Amino acid sequence: MKISIVGTGLIGGSIALKLKAKGIADFIYGIDNNTHHLNEALKLQIIDAHADLEYGIRNADLVIIAIPVDATRKLLPKVLDIISDNQTVMDTGSTKAGIVSAVKNHPKRERFVAFHPMWGTENSGPKSAVSESFAGKAGVICNREESSEDALKTVEKIVESLDMHLIYMNAEAHDVHTAYISHISHITSYALANTVLEKEREEETIFQLASSGFSSTVRLAKSHPEMWVPIFKQNKENVLDVLNEHIAQLRKFKAALEKENFEYLEELISNANKIRGILDK
Amino acid sequence: MKISIVGTGLIGGSIALKLKAKGIADFIYGIDNNTHHLNEALKLQIIDAHADLEYGIRNADLVIIAIPVDATRKLLPKVLDIISDNQTVMDTGSTKAGIVSAVKNHPKRERFVAFHPMWGTENSGPKSAVSESFAGKAGVICNREESSEDALKTVEKIVESLDMHLIYMNAEAHDVHTAYISHISHITSYALANTVLEKEREEETIFQLASSGFSSTVRLAKSHPEMWVPIFKQNKENVLDVLNEHIAQLRKFKAALEKENFEYLEELISNANKIRGILDK
Repeated sequence: MKISIVGTGLIGGSIALKLKAKGIADFIYGIDNNTHHLNEALKLQIIDAHADLEYGIRNADLVIIAIPVDATRKLLPKVLDIISDNQTVMDTGSTKAGIVSAVKNHPKRERFVAFHPMWGTENSGPKSAVSESFAGKAGVICNREESSEDALKTVEKIVESLDMHLIYMNAEAHDVHTAYISHISHITSYALANTVLEKEREEETIFQLASSGFSSTVRLAKSHPEMWVPIFKQNKENVLDVLNEHIAQLRKFKAALEKENFEYLEELISNANKIRGILDK
Repeated sequence: MKISIVGTGLIGGSIALKLKAKGIADFIYGIDNNTHHLNEALKLQIIDAHADLEYGIRNADLVIIAIPVDATRKLLPKVLDIISDNQTVMDTGSTKAGIVSAVKNHPKRERFVAFHPMWGTENSGPKSAVSESFAGKAGVICNREESSEDALKTVEKIVESLDMHLIYMNAEAHDVHTAYISHISHITSYALANTVLEKEREEETIFQLASSGFSSTVRLAKSHPEMWVPIFKQNKENVLDVLNEHIAQLRKFKAALEKENFEYLEELISNANKIRGILDK
């Protein structure tokens, strides 16, 4: 299969590496506005050649769009404009409702499969790409009924090749769930980093004392705004809803401490401990 | 050196394993109210024998107290009551001001060295103990001037044997810094778990969609209240101070989203990104 990947960063690069390793991709074109990334991806043998957008799209069986979600919304209709009925387009965006609605009435809508791999790191660029990244994680296909059967099959094969477990979901439901499971984690992590940077003026002390606990909680705060501002923008209502709940939960800890109600504090912590049973099934 | 470890859980157990591996400990007594832990520690060869409190204390060159901070405050004066001038006592508590003040005027104060290893996990019990846990992390000794020279030397040798980098700090300063670097991370993680558990009623969905990002941010929420309620209790003022700042930081994200001020949102995220430069020195 000939594949063109639009966006040769962390996600696009990791997918390319895995599809090559699995022998699914015979040839991969890289398409990227960032020529530095393109050259790196070529050097790292993530892609076989670079191409301009139109050439790359016309000469691939499968086009994978792996760029920020606002850019995907803009680009996707243009890609569908030039695609034929033998080709398939998929994306990898972290929000789905906006992307799906951007092409809802496009005459080639059936050629597109909305996809979200539930994996990422705080790093970016082709250098950060790892072939085994996706293994065991959830791969979500949204609004499958809006895609043609053969396009769906192609993408299902890709998800399987990435060793992900496949989940089907409605785009709106996806955006609600990812607000809880993924987007809020980033906001708490950013806010935690800002808290520490505001309160702890001695950077040397942060560096010296930072424990593994702090590093793991604050890890996501290293994630770039280029990717995350568009996600929060497109999932604004859901993220605000969860953020309000999160502030309310923090206020419970504050109240328990202020009133020295340590039984209540213990109750709050014991409730949080339930997450272990859910995550470590 | 003969060592008695009071509390054969994650921290006490990990210290024991490392000191045995390094050949520092010739014989280790385990002291614990939890007989299940004691038996496990014996079986895992973390300790060589168990002992009751008084026997264990009288028959050790070094007593390491590794129990929750409120229990340490209560026990420490009693341990010092029966210790001789040839023996040393150290603790491993995550808060230091309360512990240090509990023995401030004790006639044997000099035999005690206040210590905090900046390492822990969300797990507990001797089964979770790992020999290499502490390597490369900060080991903080507080109020060194209140300990006698030889007791200090003994503990410095232990910290060195754990492969930690040694930091000296005033107990009050320690409690302020750990509120930023460690304690607040636990509260945000607990609150995040409670947020998700409150909003996402379908446990199966949490389990299926949970990405590595979510797991890492919520990891600390698995930590037990037996350890953490006493820490928050003893470091109440500092924790409240940082918690208020953290809620204020979250409100900035909320305001940016509500007002659709995406430039401000980008600014907040870019500022948080600075944590990378500090942690990845």
